[in-house]
Formats: sequence, structure tokens, C-alpha cells
Amino acid sequence: MPVYSISHVENVRICVVMVGLPARGKSLISQKIVRYLSWLSIKSKCFNVGNYRRGIAKDAVITADFFDPHNPEGLHFRKQAIDAAIVDMMRWFTEENGVVGILDATNSTRSRRNKILKICRENYIEPMFLESWCDDKELILHNIADVKTTSPDYVTRSSEFATKDFLKRIELYESIYETLDPAKDANLTFIKLVNVNSQIILNRIETYLESRIVYYVMNLHIKPRSIWLSRHGESQFNLTGQIGGDADLSERGWRYAKKLPELVLKSLGEEHKHTNLTVWTSTLKRTQQTASFLPYKKLQWKALDELDAGECDGMTYEEIEVAFPEDFKARDDNKYEYRYRGGESYRDIVIRLEPIIMELERQENILIITHQAVLRCLYAYFMNVPQEESPWMSIPLHTLIKLEPRAYSTLVSRIKADIPAVSTYKEKGTSQLGESKSGVSISKSRDLLNTNDVV
Amino acid sequence: MPVYSISHVENVRICVVMVGLPARGKSLISQKIVRYLSWLSIKSKCFNVGNYRRGIAKDAVITADFFDPHNPEGLHFRKQAIDAAIVDMMRWFTEENGVVGILDATNSTRSRRNKILKICRENYIEPMFLESWCDDKELILHNIADVKTTSPDYVTRSSEFATKDFLKRIELYESIYETLDPAKDANLTFIKLVNVNSQIILNRIETYLESRIVYYVMNLHIKPRSIWLSRHGESQFNLTGQIGGDADLSERGWRYAKKLPELVLKSLGEEHKHTNLTVWTSTLKRTQQTASFLPYKKLQWKALDELDAGECDGMTYEEIEVAFPEDFKARDDNKYEYRYRGGESYRDIVIRLEPIIMELERQENILIITHQAVLRCLYAYFMNVPQEESPWMSIPLHTLIKLEPRAYSTLVSRIKADIPAVSTYKEKGTSQLGESKSGVSISKSRDLLNTNDVV
Repeated sequence: MPVYSISHVENVRICVVMVGLPARGKSLISQKIVRYLSWLSIKSKCFNVGNYRRGIAKDAVITADFFDPHNPEGLHFRKQAIDAAIVDMMRWFTEENGVVGILDATNSTRSRRNKILKICRENYIEPMFLESWCDDKELILHNIADVKTTSPDYVTRSSEFATKDFLKRIELYESIYETLDPAKDANLTFIKLVNVNSQIILNRIETYLESRIVYYVMNLHIKPRSIWLSRHGESQFNLTGQIGGDADLSERGWRYAKKLPELVLKSLGEEHKHTNLTVWTSTLKRTQQTASFLPYKKLQWKALDELDAGECDGMTYEEIEVAFPEDFKARDDNKYEYRYRGGESYRDIVIRLEPIIMELERQENILIITHQAVLRCLYAYFMNVPQEESPWMSIPLHTLIKLEPRAYSTLVSRIKADIPAVSTYKEKGTSQLGESKSGVSISKSRDLLNTNDVV
Repeated sequence: MPVYSISHVENVRICVVMVGLPARGKSLISQKIVRYLSWLSIKSKCFNVGNYRRGIAKDAVITADFFDPHNPEGLHFRKQAIDAAIVDMMRWFTEENGVVGILDATNSTRSRRNKILKICRENYIEPMFLESWCDDKELILHNIADVKTTSPDYVTRSSEFATKDFLKRIELYESIYETLDPAKDANLTFIKLVNVNSQIILNRIETYLESRIVYYVMNLHIKPRSIWLSRHGESQFNLTGQIGGDADLSERGWRYAKKLPELVLKSLGEEHKHTNLTVWTSTLKRTQQTASFLPYKKLQWKALDELDAGECDGMTYEEIEVAFPEDFKARDDNKYEYRYRGGESYRDIVIRLEPIIMELERQENILIITHQAVLRCLYAYFMNVPQEESPWMSIPLHTLIKLEPRAYSTLVSRIKADIPAVSTYKEKGTSQLGESKSGVSISKSRDLLNTNDVV
């Protein structure tokens, strides 16, 4: 009897069909949903029709004219692109057991949407339409500025040309655009977001997975903000190589705690030094001691407590290897799924962190002081690290990590405190602690999405 | 630094203003929200204007004519009632630190709603309108059937009279009713439910608490169903009086497991013996062994694991009293908040059970086999038991509890297996186990709401 997370109650496959004019944030929303669901181990993939079109119409000149509904060449390529994306998606559902596929395109007419609906129904996939509708001029111009700097369609073009051409492209789509209508589309399952989420219309949301996607999308905002992550300062248990427990900081750990306010100010820069932020800690002493010199509002969360090592709590890795040799090996073989006797696995942590992630999406500037395993899971969410890799990431002590979510990537910066600390990184196949060589290093900044475009 | 649950991030007070014609399920929704938020320790209260009106217009004849918008006497009493309810609510916010107050009335005109809006703003309360709009004839007739059997206005009337009179009352309201309109009411924070939740319109949902209420309401359904609760069969640890651990069932525990399928069938009755249900267990052996003879689909949830007793895991209450006398006393003094060293409190369990509750609201027939503390928390949710009482409820072994949620109450039945088991009930102030005398007994069926009416 396998262990289920709350996300596995149903046996349902969903095709999220994006709907919206260009520059309405469809790709951003698509990518965020894929990242969130993947983090929850729900197999998800985005099929960006713009990428297909670029592959198919390699040699075509891509200016606004290409998107004119009366341009037969453009229409031909664009139809080929959407067909190819849908074929790939259906194959992915069948052959790779996909659960949530996202069709990222404008899908601007009712006739197009009806075709997709029909294909989904023939393949026993639940279609859920997700429209981003927006008439907020400022928001649209902000999105256009993003697109013109990131879209492969405009890499060789001047900024002025890109803006003008893209506005023309939008106009051409507007001429045929049909928004989702609660009356005309009453039979569809859909979410319609009006100006980000100042108004949301939900129609026939029925399955649990659909309701999770709705709740996630509801909580997204687009205000600029930063998130800081830090492990607690070095603890007495770190010095002796013991895991778990509720030890105090070591002398060097206290030095880190005292230095932390300065690191935060440094990361804010002179210009933003008065920025307000909130500090979240776990309920364990070492995180609260680490936060104790920070002049900000503080909140404690049980959900940020370290992975519960159960019977191994308070032991060193060497002791665990002697006492439970088979468990020790099993954990190395599948560290994400391995659950300590009477304790937790990484998967268990992800489930208890889910409300924290939702709250983080809603909040603005937050500094989180937590523990190695929990920090790995949080980092994996923001940086889209596959779950099987996340337990092997090296996240050193006495280092402040700053994440700045951008439209299509997250910027990472690390500020080292220059206070020595033991390494708590255990390489696969050994019980020795030492610096990571093979693990994924946290200094790598991953792009979440390299393309953003409309077909 | 107090420990915060996810519900305490903001410092916001909300007045949920119900909107809707009679027989649209407003009181049911109001009561469920109050129950859910109270369970999460968010201070909530419903102000039912119908009750105020009955108090004020004690001697008036309450037939449909009373609700005629042209009847000055009726209007006078009804205005007095709503004014009194609002005054009480504002006093409750200020003097009793209320967080979410619900004004349960039809609030059918824009002018009435504007008055409430103004009072809320003057008192720094965020108004959130929640409309239940329904044109599904079957649903309305179903609700009317409920009202006429539960409303104090019709206790002395025949069923025929009640139905006819109530329909007339609805008509009178319809003549002046103004539904929430995304265009006209664009500046309000509101949720509009169309035919339960086949369509939902959300407007300007901004705070975390508002989004929690939205998500909860989104997940409610009104299909009839049952929920069964059982503790695992007697375990080896129960025999020795030890808490926690992951012990196997005792010989008598196995007898309970073998008998459980028969108890479930008995509770279903001959007519429904083929009803399908799903069994949820924790990840601990004793619950899975208890489920092992049940011929239904099974799911394991880490969130259903027993309260983690931390350093006391595996000890008896006598041993805990000797080893940690102060903790032992502190737990008796405030059992809901007391967190075992390195372990959990009841409050911690409630936080991790929240997704389980949400999923239970979505599902139909579910049988949960779990542990004493977890079962107390689940039971407290369904039966509206105050959180300070819930840790002291006596929930004996070898007993199947069946809950049948109804519109304004939950029916409880208990089926005892007639297989002896030790008592695991510890009375306050002692370390001895024995049958509960002072604890709240589970056999008591509490009504969630005794009144349902419109003003």
C-alpha cells in the first residue's frame, strides 16, 4: 500500500488550455503551475506553441504581418504548430503518464477551443480553460517590456521596433478574440482571471486537482519582492556531527547570528535599506537564536522544523550506519522517498511545506531561517530543482541566500558571512561529512523558462 | 515569541455579509464557516438576524405578509433586528476580539448592503459579501423542505401551510432583490456562488483569511454522505500503557480488525450494503492492520499519524510523570497547547489535519482509521467541540463511529464491537488509565445550529 500525498486521491488527467491575448502573462502562469505541481510530484509539462511555430517556420520573417488572420502562409505555419503541440501532449499523456499538460497559446477563438475540447474528450483528458484577461494598460505595457527583452522573435530587433511590432501583433489578435463567457461557455470547466486576480470567475471546477490549481493561481501576485533563505548558525549538534535534536548555537553560530543583520542590509543595498521584511523561523531553538538580533517582525512555524529523524534523532551518521546498515543504504538509494523509522522523508516535508509555499506566494519580503532539509525543499521549489536531486544539494552553513523572482527566472545571490563552520554535507555512499563535490551546488542560477512567446 | 499557525499572519477582522433569497443555504454556509474557522482557533461568530427578529417581534404573527416590503410593521421590526445584530457584532469585534463575524440575513438590496459597508468601514472591519444565488428549482425545493422542518417560524404550522407560505415569502423578497453584479459592485470584495458552486465569481479577494474562506466554500458540496471514524484495534503498546511507537495489534486488536467489515455493513444497513467507500489510514502499522480485512480501496496519510510525543515516545504516563513532572502538570493544565519536548501539541495536529478536512469536505463516503488524539481533532471539527475540550474527550477502542452530516446538525451513531480492550483514557490530574467519567462523552450528539431563518 503506497503512501499517498493529498494530490493522489484521484485518477484524473488534465489539459490546462491557456486563453488570452499576447502579453497577458500566460507563459508565466503556465510555468508557475508546472513548477508548483512538479514540486508536489505531480507530473506536469508545458507545451508552448510559440516554440513549435519557431521550429516549423524557421525561415519565415516573424513580424506582426505573420499573425494577420488573413495571411495564408502565417495561418498555415501556426496551424501546423498547434497541431504538433497537441499531438506531442497527447503522446506525453499516454506514453509518459503525464498528469497535467498545459497548452500555452492564445487559443483566442471559440472554434479553436472547441477543437481542443474535442481532442481532449476523445483521449479521456479533462480540459480546463484558463484565461488571463486584462485591460489594465500599465500591466500590458509592463508585460510587453518583458516580452521584447525575452522573446526569441525579437532578439535581432531594436527595442522600438519590438514594441511597435508587438502592439500591432496584439491588435491583429484582438480583431478575432472571443473571451470566455459565463453564459456562452457555461458547459466548460474554466478559470477566468481579470486583471491578474482582481476578479476571478470559476466555472464547473470539479476535481481536486483543478481546485488546487485554482487556489494556487488565486494566490499569485506580481509585485516585485525578495525571499531570503538561511540555515541556522552552527549548532552544538553540528560540532559533534549529530542530527536532529534541539541544541543551542555554538560560539561560531552565535557570531553568525550577530552578523546576520549586516548581511541582510548588504543584500538590500543602500537604496533599499529601509525595506520592511518579516522573519520566519522554525520552533527549534537554533533558528530562533539565529534570528534574535534581526530588527524585524518574527513568526515561528512548526512546519519549518527540521526533518524528523525518528529513532535516529540525536545520532551521528556513523552511528546510524552501524545501528541500521540497511536503512542507511536504503536512504542513499532513494533519499527523497526514504522515511526514517518513526520519522519523516523529504516527501513528507514537501507535504507539510505546501501551506508555507502558498503563504510565500501571497507575501512580499520574507526571510526564512530554517534547517538543511527544509531549506533544500524550499530552494527546490523556487529554483525548479527536480525532487530526486534536491536532497543532495549542498547548502552550507553561515550563508545568506537571496532569491529574486523575475517573470521567467529567479535570480540567486549568496552572501557568505566569512565565519567558519563545520560541513554538514554527507556525500552518497559514505557516512563522512565533508564539502560537496558531486552535489548540485546552490550557486547555480537556473532559468525557469527561456522562451516566452505567442504562436 | 508565540507560535503562529498559518492563520495568524495578518491582523485583519472580517465581516462576512451573506446575501441571498430565502432557502439558498445561507445559514448552512455561515455555520460551516464558523465551525471551520473556530476549529482553526480563529475567533468567529454568526449573527443570525432571523433570531434577532424573533426576539424583537415576539408577538407578531409571522406569515409571509410580515415580509411584504409594503408592510410598515414588518419593516419596522426587521429594521430593528438588523440594527441590533450589527450593534452586537461590532461590540463583539471590539470587546471580545472577534476576527470573523458573519451577518446571516438576506441583505437583498444594494442600499442595505451600502449601509453595512459604511458601518464596517467606520469600524475598520473588512466587509466581504458572500452571495448564494440559485435558480435550480430542485435545490430550492430541497432547501425549503429543510427550512419548514427546522424554522421556529413554522413549528406550530402544518407542512402544507409552511411550504406555501414560505414560497410566498420568497416571492416578496424577489420583488426587491438585487444580485451582486461584477460591474455595479466592482469595488466590493465578494464571492458569488451560483447554484452551490457550479459557478463562482470572486471579486477583490485580497487578504489571506478571505482566500481561506473562499477555498473552503469552493470545496463544499451538498451530496448526502457518511464519514466513519475508528481508532486502530488494541495494540501491544496499549496493553503495556505505552504511548506513541509503531507497535503491532494485540490478539484482541486483530479480532477487532476481523470484525470491522461486519460493523461497517451493519452501519450501512441492508439497503445500502453495496455503498462504495474509501478507507484512509495513517502510516503506522496498527491502523493498517486494523484496515486489512476491509474490502475497499485504501489510502495512507502521514497527516493521520498519532500525535508525536517526542522524548516521551514509548513511555507510560507513570514514567512521564516521574521523568518530567513539570511537563506532566503543564500538559494537564493546557492539554490543547502543550507540546511534548521535541514532539507535537494538539494545535500542531489541527494544522497538519487541515488539508485532510478540506479533502473530506470534497469527498463522499470515507472511513478513517486513526489514533486517539487525531480522532479527537477530527471529531471536534464535525461536532463543533470547543478546542479546549477536545483533548479530554473519551473515544474508546473497538468502537466504530458513524457521522452523517445534515443541513443543520451531524447525526452520530456508535457501533461497539463487543471485543474487550484496555482503556487508554487518562483523566486530568492522574497518571492512571481508566474509563472517562468527567470527559465529554462521544455519545452526545451536538446540534450545530438550532435555528435557520430569514429576517
